[in-house]
Amino acid sequence: MSSSAKTHPQFTPGILSLLPTFYVGWSDSILSPGEIVFIQNLIKDLDFLTEEERTYLLTYTDPKNPPGPDVFRQWKRAITEHAQSLTKEDISSLEALGLQIATKGIGYNNQEYWKSPKTKAAIREIRKALGVQNRDAARILPGDLVQTNPETQIDYALAEDIQTHLDDKHADLINRLKKLLRDPYFSLKTIRNKEEYRQVVLNQLQTLADQGYTSYAFPKEYGGKDEVEKNLVIFETLAFQDLSLTVKYGVQLGLFGGAIMGLGTEKHHSQYINRLIDMDLLGCFAMTETNHGSNVRGLETTATYNHETESFIIQTPHEKAGKEYIGNALHCEMAVVFAQLIIDGASKGVHAFVVPVRNNEGQLMPGVRVEDCGYKMGLNGVDNGRLWFDNVSIPKDGLLDKYGTVDSTGNYVSSIQSDAKRFFTMLGALVMGRVCVGMAGVSCSKTALSIAIKYGDKRRQFGANDASPETIILDYPTHQEKLFPLLAKTYAYHFAFRKLFEDYAEDTSEEGRRKVETKAAGLKAMATWHATNTIQVSREACGGKGYLSENRFTDLKADSDIFTTFEGDNTVLLQLVAKGLLTEFKKSFHDSGFTAVMKYLGSKFAQRFSEYNFTYTRNTSITHLRDRAFHLEAFKYREKKLLYTVASRMQDFTKKRVDTYEAYLKCQLHLLELAKAYIERLALRNFASKINSMEEGRSKDLMNLMADLYAVHTILDNKGWYLENDYMDGSKTKALRRLKQKLYQEIRPQATTLVEAFGIPEELLNARIVLYN
Amino acid sequence: MSSSAKTHPQFTPGILSLLPTFYVGWSDSILSPGEIVFIQNLIKDLDFLTEEERTYLLTYTDPKNPPGPDVFRQWKRAITEHAQSLTKEDISSLEALGLQIATKGIGYNNQEYWKSPKTKAAIREIRKALGVQNRDAARILPGDLVQTNPETQIDYALAEDIQTHLDDKHADLINRLKKLLRDPYFSLKTIRNKEEYRQVVLNQLQTLADQGYTSYAFPKEYGGKDEVEKNLVIFETLAFQDLSLTVKYGVQLGLFGGAIMGLGTEKHHSQYINRLIDMDLLGCFAMTETNHGSNVRGLETTATYNHETESFIIQTPHEKAGKEYIGNALHCEMAVVFAQLIIDGASKGVHAFVVPVRNNEGQLMPGVRVEDCGYKMGLNGVDNGRLWFDNVSIPKDGLLDKYGTVDSTGNYVSSIQSDAKRFFTMLGALVMGRVCVGMAGVSCSKTALSIAIKYGDKRRQFGANDASPETIILDYPTHQEKLFPLLAKTYAYHFAFRKLFEDYAEDTSEEGRRKVETKAAGLKAMATWHATNTIQVSREACGGKGYLSENRFTDLKADSDIFTTFEGDNTVLLQLVAKGLLTEFKKSFHDSGFTAVMKYLGSKFAQRFSEYNFTYTRNTSITHLRDRAFHLEAFKYREKKLLYTVASRMQDFTKKRVDTYEAYLKCQLHLLELAKAYIERLALRNFASKINSMEEGRSKDLMNLMADLYAVHTILDNKGWYLENDYMDGSKTKALRRLKQKLYQEIRPQATTLVEAFGIPEELLNARIVLYN
Repeated sequence: MSSSAKTHPQFTPGILSLLPTFYVGWSDSILSPGEIVFIQNLIKDLDFLTEEERTYLLTYTDPKNPPGPDVFRQWKRAITEHAQSLTKEDISSLEALGLQIATKGIGYNNQEYWKSPKTKAAIREIRKALGVQNRDAARILPGDLVQTNPETQIDYALAEDIQTHLDDKHADLINRLKKLLRDPYFSLKTIRNKEEYRQVVLNQLQTLADQGYTSYAFPKEYGGKDEVEKNLVIFETLAFQDLSLTVKYGVQLGLFGGAIMGLGTEKHHSQYINRLIDMDLLGCFAMTETNHGSNVRGLETTATYNHETESFIIQTPHEKAGKEYIGNALHCEMAVVFAQLIIDGASKGVHAFVVPVRNNEGQLMPGVRVEDCGYKMGLNGVDNGRLWFDNVSIPKDGLLDKYGTVDSTGNYVSSIQSDAKRFFTMLGALVMGRVCVGMAGVSCSKTALSIAIKYGDKRRQFGANDASPETIILDYPTHQEKLFPLLAKTYAYHFAFRKLFEDYAEDTSEEGRRKVETKAAGLKAMATWHATNTIQVSREACGGKGYLSENRFTDLKADSDIFTTFEGDNTVLLQLVAKGLLTEFKKSFHDSGFTAVMKYLGSKFAQRFSEYNFTYTRNTSITHLRDRAFHLEAFKYREKKLLYTVASRMQDFTKKRVDTYEAYLKCQLHLLELAKAYIERLALRNFASKINSMEEGRSKDLMNLMADLYAVHTILDNKGWYLENDYMDGSKTKALRRLKQKLYQEIRPQATTLVEAFGIPEELLNARIVLYN
Repeated sequence: MSSSAKTHPQFTPGILSLLPTFYVGWSDSILSPGEIVFIQNLIKDLDFLTEEERTYLLTYTDPKNPPGPDVFRQWKRAITEHAQSLTKEDISSLEALGLQIATKGIGYNNQEYWKSPKTKAAIREIRKALGVQNRDAARILPGDLVQTNPETQIDYALAEDIQTHLDDKHADLINRLKKLLRDPYFSLKTIRNKEEYRQVVLNQLQTLADQGYTSYAFPKEYGGKDEVEKNLVIFETLAFQDLSLTVKYGVQLGLFGGAIMGLGTEKHHSQYINRLIDMDLLGCFAMTETNHGSNVRGLETTATYNHETESFIIQTPHEKAGKEYIGNALHCEMAVVFAQLIIDGASKGVHAFVVPVRNNEGQLMPGVRVEDCGYKMGLNGVDNGRLWFDNVSIPKDGLLDKYGTVDSTGNYVSSIQSDAKRFFTMLGALVMGRVCVGMAGVSCSKTALSIAIKYGDKRRQFGANDASPETIILDYPTHQEKLFPLLAKTYAYHFAFRKLFEDYAEDTSEEGRRKVETKAAGLKAMATWHATNTIQVSREACGGKGYLSENRFTDLKADSDIFTTFEGDNTVLLQLVAKGLLTEFKKSFHDSGFTAVMKYLGSKFAQRFSEYNFTYTRNTSITHLRDRAFHLEAFKYREKKLLYTVASRMQDFTKKRVDTYEAYLKCQLHLLELAKAYIERLALRNFASKINSMEEGRSKDLMNLMADLYAVHTILDNKGWYLENDYMDGSKTKALRRLKQKLYQEIRPQATTLVEAFGIPEELLNARIVLYN
């Protein structure tokens, strides 16, 4: 039964202040019983309401008794009437609208009272509890009452459509998880004390486990959901919120759980996976040592096999061979420890072992020493620590023995003969971490750009003269030049990672996995550098406001800073990529014919250049410059020529009998360029094919615009190279520069829609400058 | 009387552990009585000493009773003998050496005890208290005992010589201030709570005042020292330490004190300057408003003159016209408030007023509202707040009336007729802030590079193969490419700012001041972006270690981040620079002949290009490529051509009757390029002339190497432009790239010496990775 409007209420200020929020809320929300009690308590606490007003409002907090059509009509009429003479400027939230209509015609003194930030905050709390977002208001409220600035006119329908392409098949999961993260329980707050912060994060992770979000990556037989791709999407979505929680999640499930799953065998899986999914078993991933970070093969911790007792002795040989930066070190019960497996005095290379760190009362096991890493630049909700092991004995089963084991006679056996190959196969089982961190970088870029572009679209500063209104800063070419290329690249990387997610989940063959590894290494490097840069530029684009912690950049910047060097240092990763490309390149010919092939390729490049020289290099028509085929060809030419020339150089060094390592060092900067060029092409090619699969329409047009800018900007970033190699002449690069500015103008009116499409709820953006007036 | 070596002590472990420190300490130090008591207490607290050892060591803590030559000889012999069989690797501190010789031949269990970080820390405390730096050890200790890695071999003599060129005529002041900042009282620590942190900073600033460091910028008649240049050097030096203290110093002395000095008249000077130097009067500088940051002319706060009471009413017209980010807001007694001066309903433009904020009991004055800005990304030791004024009345004398006043009949009078000119003259009085912040950026860059290069010189990772030692990471070309160009640029900017200090102090004419303003704006922008970038790259170069707060980057990065947008947003400042250049350019011709001149210049550029085309653009000889004249010519060509072309474009727009503002927006990116090119040339030209003034020798050679890299790197950064404009061809840019790598190799062995030359004491570096083994 719905209550009708029998009472004919007087719309007094208290009611009016909440009416827009209620109107939009009732149009849209379904509330749980717990939420209702919460909202009712909030309303009871509002000291600006009269008793009558409170009673009236409470009537409409019960989902079993929703307002009927009459009431709705009354509300709508009241809002419209009272809002009639408002100056609409600056009404960008429901609470602002409510307060404006409530305080019209009230004396100055009372206005002061109504206008206190506390009053607005109280109403905002109710709006949030109702699950109402201001973006909903534009859709539901009559006559454009909220978001009335033409500049801040987001095209919500278009944004939603683009978002369906971004979220893709994972929309349901993403929406569910976002709804959970928007709950006040997960609200982002600055907790300055690390111990307190760590406890909050630990509890939140437990909640994620309780809600079933920790099980996706694992097989059903051990309590998992066997949906690896979904697990990656969860990480991507968590990264919109607190990165401490995101990283803690990654340590427990991806690193610790992933190591047990990927490097262990059935006996380990059945014993641990169920428990770690439930957070009943907390674990850490003790790989990195103080003296060995990137060079994992050089780890110095030993696990020496004792034939008599059939056990391993885990030993840290010296202080700087201790494990460092280990997440979960202060909370965990167990560690996966990477150590040199020693049998009869000989090392069989690095292997992983499960080592108890604490008993179930939380006391350290004998021989284990743990030290807090202390405060870090960010991620202070994660308990990173150092670990040392002194003569710690573990049973034989402690070896995670998928790729190598000790048989009953005490001999080492492995299905992979080469130590090096075994090592890299083991590392390969852990590629997921790089995929996750890279995509988290993309999520952070989205957050930063959402804040900077939304703020830039309402902030005004300077003007043509004192009389004219000040210019909206996003209209300045300098501001566009800062933000729009980053926006385009963020789109490109989003789709590149989503493709990588698919490849990772679909092709689990050795060949497929190796390809994913190369791409993951390169994309991780490029996307995390992109994130660091985007966050920095976005902060600066918000000026002093960006420096206040209330506007999110403080945490976003500090927390994500480590992305560029953990899970593989970016510079090291790009060298992996380049080496992979070189190997593939050489493999594609018979070794005997390599010199001949190089010669052939050399002449081909020379010939191609002369062909280009008269038409292509000087073609400055807009159609050509916006032709995706031209972009792809230019990206490809650069990558292939860098590959060919570095292969030639390496070959020359070999001929001159230069030591291979020396030759490699001489080519190191060249190799880095190659790796970057490869990833840039990968991202463009993938973006292009994603767009090809879209239906014609405005979303596709906008994605094409993003791809155009990504391509043109990247070419211009490398214009020195293109000119040096006579691939283009100066007239063409100048034409591209003009085109880029033209693209900025096309993007400008759609910029806020393009960030709205990222679909980051305002609770997760958590930046006062875009939340409030 | 000096004590002789009658006692023939047994050099037991406890004595040995401190012997190297004592030996170097006694060779060098002079201690104050207070310091001695402090050291004695430290020694009494050392629980690893026996009673006899303690007594022996205490004997040598009294400067009135120094060890005689015999004792010295004994000590030296003991150290040398015990150190004989040490593996010298990793001994990079006196405490490490002491512990190594102390623990030789002691059983494993005891070693563990000796090797605890606490023991080492205790000895380090004593070393610090003795005023001994590890760098002194290499000079004083026999036989290379400390710093024995060839890679970490800093050439201290050379570093010291270079430092004399950097510190220049200010060496005494810098050394004195550094000595003070090295005192444990100023030691850098992470204080997470802002209230606590602010109190510490306030106290430290009081100490600086007590020691006379706050008076340099002010005339002697008001208690100052009248040494403006020295004041800038103090700021530069403070920026090696805690930036919160640096900024707080800047707010009190530079902004608040500077405004009263620069905008006020005798009545203000005599009333306030003495008190603010002594910190008896704390003040803030209330210029920026929420809605008006960069566009100061648009400030909305009003100061309305009341003829009857001969007073001003200060009023904040609405919430967002409140003052924001105001440093010292929570501590200050008085504010310099910038407001529109209104007389008889008409605005006379922005003027500054002294407004009491709190009474001398710390209570807010009626009508003044203050709000804490809360936590910020960094600088949490500075109390930034928001201020609103409601009907606050101040006497007529509250107007800082150097450039405009209200006469006895209530009329506005000013020596400067044009409102705009008056406004910019007033702002000009405050240029010092930009000079300071820019140079602080240089200091931060020095700190970051000192840490990253010293760490990179001892950190090893990967190697040619498993058998060979791992490579020192600073030997990787990728690592050199990251750090060395930043090092070169830091040197260039150091000298550029020091020249600016001189110009600022020497030429106080209007013409001179305007030139300094343009340079200060541009250098501030370039140097602070450089700092942000350098700190980021340096952090990444230290990997995970760089992310730990114990290694300084946490604070360095967060605190300095605001530099790019405060005291003038960098993008806005560069536009100021470009406008200044355009104005000068136009002024240098008679207006009537402007079109003709442009035509003439156009043909001149074209002609020059064709002259270059056959010899210059293809010259790839090393002599030419390292010729400073070539560098200067290339920098100059770029700047002048950018200037000419943007002037042409603007003129074209004018001809087509495009609105000036519109035309300006269309050229905005071009103008930014011009401003950057100008500053780059300014820095190179200045660096070159500084080097010319140096005597021949190794310091000069190294500075030339730095200038070569700065020049070559900058040209390569802009190689797209040079190629596009046919100023060079591809063979030449490729040759420059090869030269750059050659320069890296020349710099490599001197890299640590080049950062040592910055002369940052290890207490101020405050990074565990370079302090400790």
